[in-house]
Amino acid sequence: MDINELTERMHDFVRSKGWYEAGSKRPQTPRNLAVSLSIEAAEILEHFQWREQAQDQDALASELADVTLYLLQLASVSGIDLEQAVLRKLKTNAARSWDGGESDPLP
Amino acid sequence: MDINELTERMHDFVRSKGWYEAGSKRPQTPRNLAVSLSIEAAEILEHFQWREQAQDQDALASELADVTLYLLQLASVSGIDLEQAVLRKLKTNAARSWDGGESDPLP
Amino acid sequence: MDINELTERMHDFVRSKGWYEAGSKRPQTPRNLAVSLSIEAAEILEHFQWREQAQDQDALASELADVTLYLLQLASVSGIDLEQAVLRKLKTNAARSWDGGESDPLP
Amino acid sequence: MDINELTERMHDFVRSKGWYEAGSKRPQTPRNLAVSLSIEAAEILEHFQWREQAQDQDALASELADVTLYLLQLASVSGIDLEQAVLRKLKTNAARSWDGGESDPLP
Repeated sequence: MDINELTERMHDFVRSKGWYEAGSKRPQTPRNLAVSLSIEAAEILEHFQWREQAQDQDALASELADVTLYLLQLASVSGIDLEQAVLRKLKTNAARSWDGGESDPLP
Repeated sequence: MDINELTERMHDFVRSKGWYEAGSKRPQTPRNLAVSLSIEAAEILEHFQWREQAQDQDALASELADVTLYLLQLASVSGIDLEQAVLRKLKTNAARSWDGGESDPLP
Repeated sequence: MDINELTERMHDFVRSKGWYEAGSKRPQTPRNLAVSLSIEAAEILEHFQWREQAQDQDALASELADVTLYLLQLASVSGIDLEQAVLRKLKTNAARSWDGGESDPLP
Repeated sequence: MDINELTERMHDFVRSKGWYEAGSKRPQTPRNLAVSLSIEAAEILEHFQWREQAQDQDALASELADVTLYLLQLASVSGIDLEQAVLRKLKTNAARSWDGGESDPLP
């Protein structure tokens, strides 16, 4: 399943919960979604707070899914094509020579 | 392009940088990747530190790509099928009735 | 110097920049401060993205200061006595027996 | 109570739990503490995930205490004088003129 299709499934879910409607308990604003993304990323990090390996694979998978869904939604409401952004990043970084600076992101 | 294909592209890139090799400057351990995911999520959040809308769409897209790549890599090294995890989460949450608890994640 | 005094110094600074005023570029709302705290915590984490020891002590000290100031401000605008909260937490946790659950925070 | 005294109280607690000992369940390494700081900062952020005001002041106070304790411990094990770092930051930033760049931290 490609990113666009997963994004559509995510939209169906958000719509079904009424979160796109006025007075929604979870307004799908870029800022709210960026906040949510950080919160969920920290829940993943918690699996590794004192250890190198996660103990609960199912919980980890569930939280990776949470991050994915917020990421898809944030890209969507921001009008960003996530697949294109990823491919562009891979292309740019493949061309760059690495000087060992650890602040550079993975891509 | 589906998740598996993007994951392969990501692996090609990581491999080309030598990060899978012994003595790598960026060991692709689950913990390192979880840490990186949080760092990049915060870089996205920075676009919204004092505002509701991001000012620099290209930079935002680039950072969404960074989060995506770390997410794909973390799922991969953890042996988690990200697409399945997302679909499972959507199914579970569609079935749940919402009681308004805001700590519940999006999915 | 105690927490109250550091908090006063922080207020003086924020006031001098005009951030308490209407139309401020950095409205000192609890939410904005919580967002800022997370952003700065991630900048600290970046020193340890791929390593166990930070390489740049001055930069680390500077970012620990950033987190401290946002923490003081968030406690202040939320009407929370940070010193009391810390002492209460230490007291509560000293009484608790630990069962090894790693999700428990330090205190 | 000043920062040094709170730091001592924190040390007493950590020592009493055996976390300084070999084979500790919670090795007090800089990296582990930086990870913990980010995790706790995100728990604070969760109070503001969809709202501007926190609903549970006691829980918020408890989590601000958690961040404070990890911050004190991280400064301590890193050999950083937190009070000096804060005063230095306030002095530096008071001297700077602000150009409106929102990436600048509070201090």
